[in-house]
Order: sequence, then C-alpha cells, then structure tokens
Amino acid sequence: MNTQDLLDQIAFIKEIDKVKYIQRKTKLFQSDRNENDAEHSWHLALMAIVLAEHSDKSIDVLKVVKMVLIHDIVEIDAGDTFIYDLQKSHDNGDEERIAANRIFGLLPKKQAEEMIVIWEEFEAGETPEAKFARAMDRMEPLLQNTSNNGGTWQEFDVKYEKVYEKKSVIKEGSAILWQYAEGLLEESVAKGILKKE
Amino acid sequence: MNTQDLLDQIAFIKEIDKVKYIQRKTKLFQSDRNENDAEHSWHLALMAIVLAEHSDKSIDVLKVVKMVLIHDIVEIDAGDTFIYDLQKSHDNGDEERIAANRIFGLLPKKQAEEMIVIWEEFEAGETPEAKFARAMDRMEPLLQNTSNNGGTWQEFDVKYEKVYEKKSVIKEGSAILWQYAEGLLEESVAKGILKKE
Repeated sequence: MNTQDLLDQIAFIKEIDKVKYIQRKTKLFQSDRNENDAEHSWHLALMAIVLAEHSDKSIDVLKVVKMVLIHDIVEIDAGDTFIYDLQKSHDNGDEERIAANRIFGLLPKKQAEEMIVIWEEFEAGETPEAKFARAMDRMEPLLQNTSNNGGTWQEFDVKYEKVYEKKSVIKEGSAILWQYAEGLLEESVAKGILKKE
Repeated sequence: MNTQDLLDQIAFIKEIDKVKYIQRKTKLFQSDRNENDAEHSWHLALMAIVLAEHSDKSIDVLKVVKMVLIHDIVEIDAGDTFIYDLQKSHDNGDEERIAANRIFGLLPKKQAEEMIVIWEEFEAGETPEAKFARAMDRMEPLLQNTSNNGGTWQEFDVKYEKVYEKKSVIKEGSAILWQYAEGLLEESVAKGILKKE
C-alpha cells in the first residue's frame, strides 16, 4: 500500500464532514426544519436506487449514486444557491469548479480525477446517468414542498410557471416520473399551494 | 408501468425522511453537534467508495453502498443503540427485524425482499461486502472521536480494551485499514484521550 494515498483519502473524508453544515432552503417532509446537503444527498442516493427502473435509458446505478452523493460537495466552498434565486441563478459555475479542484484534489491523483469527471458529467447533464441523477435532485424538493403546503414556493413566492420550468429536468431522465411530477404540480395548483402568474 | 409500484416507492421515500431525526451519540468532526443517521449513512457511502481499494477481498461496491445507505433505516422504529451500552448491547435484533419488515415492506414486494436480504447480509457480517460495510461503520466514529479529544470514549468513560474489541471488526474487512485504526488507538492512548483499564 501507498501510505500517503490512505492519508490523502482520510483527509478527504474529514473535509467532507462540512457538507453536514450546509443548509438548504427546502425543509424536511412535513417539517419546518431545514435540510442539510448531507441528508439531501443520502436521500437522493436511496431514491436513485429505488426508482432506477423508471429511467428511460439503461443506467449504471453505481455511477448515478456516486453523482448524487458528491454533487453538493463543492458547496463547502461555493455555498448553496437557491434554485429560484434569479440573480445568482445557479450560475456560480466557476466558483464551483475551483471548489471541485480543491476538495476532490485532496484525494490521490487518479481518484481525484475520477471524481471530478463524475461531478462534471453530473453538471453537464447530458448522459443517461446525469439526466437521471438530476431528475432525483428535482424530485426530492418537489415531494418536500407538496408535503409542506407549498414549502419554499410559498415562502419565496415562486410561481407555477417557474417551478414547472425547473422541474422539467425530470422529463429528461424519466417519462414516468415526469408524468407523476406533473400530476403533483397540477394538484398543488388545485390546492392553492402553488399559484400561477 | 404499474402505478401502484411507483406510489409504494414514493411512500417508502417519504417514510425514510425520519432517519434524519435519529441522533447518534457520536459528534461531527471537531464539533459538539451530534450526528444523525442520514448524515452518518451518507458519509459511510462515500467512505466505502473512496476506500474500496483497501478491501482484503474483491467487493461489489454498489452492494456495499446499498448496505451502508440502508443499515440504520430500522432505527426509525427500533431507535439508535449506543455501541458501548452494555445493557442493550446492540441486541435489539428482534425489534430491528420487525422494523425492517415494516419499513422495507412499504416497497413493491420484489424490491422489499431485495432490501431485506441486503440488510440481513449486513447484519450477519459474513460476506466480503458486509465485512467491508461494517468496517466503514466502525471507522467513521473512530475518526470522529480522535478528532474530538476522545469524544464518546471520554463522555461515557469507555476504556481502550472495549474500544479495541469493537473496532476489531475493521480487521475483518481490511488489514490495511485495521493497521491504520490500531495506530489511531495507540496514539489516542498516548495522548491520554483513551484510557486503559
């Protein structure tokens, strides 16, 4: 064994503990407690495993799981950006790329490169795995907001049209999950917990 | 698609949100904030991915990841048992089995059976995947306690001999990680943050 490799891996394992402190805007199910990035990533990983059969394309489930487990690690340096924040609008790509290089760069070189490639693939959203992983990332807050009487949609006055646009990412990964998601959005409008413009 | 299957999967996804409320005795790294089971499981999954090369035997990494992601879900019903609690001594197996049947039983039948089999395999600790998954489960609090001046060892007056015995599980999965873990234990004794009988 290369002892330095193990020490580098341990340094990475310690560093990512900080993900547990990054608060998301979204609240847990039927709750007013904010979710943190580690809890969110854990939930997406299990969603990916449980819902994998609904992917439109055949997928490498382990790769999807890796994507969702690591996708928010860059927020240790770059911070969480609210998806409906129109100013920042999730365009802090450069900041996130620098963060990816620093944090994954703690790992042994080959492993660091693999992680950065997987993270970039998730960000690009073009492969079947990335599309399905991104669908999971949109599904969880949809389920949370509908369980919380509109949750962040109500709290930040986000309208149906904007939510529909953001949630359409689900369609890229799974027609079946998108059909279900569209139903939830319609139901939310009918209940008055999501308002049209 | 069988719509009922998807609805059952969604019910499971909502139910497991409760894992985020289950507090462990162990604290986060260099912190006095308790870790919850979802954060813990997320960390173990990434540890398994990053450290997989150190497994003594060839392992199916996706299976190990599934094991660590789901291993504490039964605590929704059975509660967290402190590993050094001599009275309960992690022997609430019946309670956990009933919990596994109820919670994984929310999933479509075939998927529920698969999850229960994986959970049972982890609990039995006999296959290479279970041994490595259990090694991860022992490694994380070791790293946390050493970063917290003894952490739960100090807080609950747990002695070296008992810790050494519990941590020996790491040896079953990886000689290299065990060598590293033994070093950490010796170092902790030398520093006075872990006391011998």
